[in-house]
Amino acid sequence: MMAGLLGNNVITQIGILVHDIDKVSQAYADFFGVPKPEARWTDAADKAQTEYNGEPSEARAKLAFIDMGSLQLELIEPDLHPSTWRNYLDEHGEGPHHIAFFIEGMKEKVTLLETNGFPLQQKGEYTGGRYAYMDTFKELKVLVELLENDK
Amino acid sequence: MMAGLLGNNVITQIGILVHDIDKVSQAYADFFGVPKPEARWTDAADKAQTEYNGEPSEARAKLAFIDMGSLQLELIEPDLHPSTWRNYLDEHGEGPHHIAFFIEGMKEKVTLLETNGFPLQQKGEYTGGRYAYMDTFKELKVLVELLENDK
Repeated sequence: MMAGLLGNNVITQIGILVHDIDKVSQAYADFFGVPKPEARWTDAADKAQTEYNGEPSEARAKLAFIDMGSLQLELIEPDLHPSTWRNYLDEHGEGPHHIAFFIEGMKEKVTLLETNGFPLQQKGEYTGGRYAYMDTFKELKVLVELLENDK
Repeated sequence: MMAGLLGNNVITQIGILVHDIDKVSQAYADFFGVPKPEARWTDAADKAQTEYNGEPSEARAKLAFIDMGSLQLELIEPDLHPSTWRNYLDEHGEGPHHIAFFIEGMKEKVTLLETNGFPLQQKGEYTGGRYAYMDTFKELKVLVELLENDK
């Protein structure tokens, strides 16, 4: 089983929770000498169809992406509605939250991980794809996000 | 100043603090379908010349490296001596601690970062190179490690 549960082990994003995305985006721009990324809100609930712990949630977040070599660094400033972002930020404070991987077949992957003991924590849709945060923290000490883009 | 303070923005490692490196290494091996990495102690103080917050420290850690696409995931189980690893683990609990970058000219880079408001937190030597953890947490919400390998 060299392919593992995901089918690959290529980290495509590191997600970092922050209180003030504007300030932290500027700090990254200054530190790494890159343009300051523009932060954008995730889609509203009707489009994102966000579910957190099995329940629909109005939660949204402001996201900003910075290209770092072969992967992206994702800054995340969540709103106050229940979400993996809000909950983790309240419990752990600011800092890294997840590593993300592109997968194929979201439904099957989520089921595979769940049957292997990694519960689905949050999922949602975005233009052109969908995501799922799997609760791998106890075992891997970081959350794993699955990303699937439409072809 | 597009090159930024480091001269590049290619993340080469993500470092994750753990209490039980044997258990977490096995979990990564199972999850990603890769061989379980062997954990090894960092060098003793006479060779590592570890300094933490400007003072020599006996601190050591068990390290295990897992290749993840274009970067390495580094698992770190620190001993009880004062170190950035021990301190962060005690304060934040298990989870990601730093992102690492290869640089050239360690002494000059450390000075450059210090003059830009990012203090040196810990440094040390390893066979073939040296490292420095810079305290970027307040600004970047994660620590930055500088790595320099001899040519």
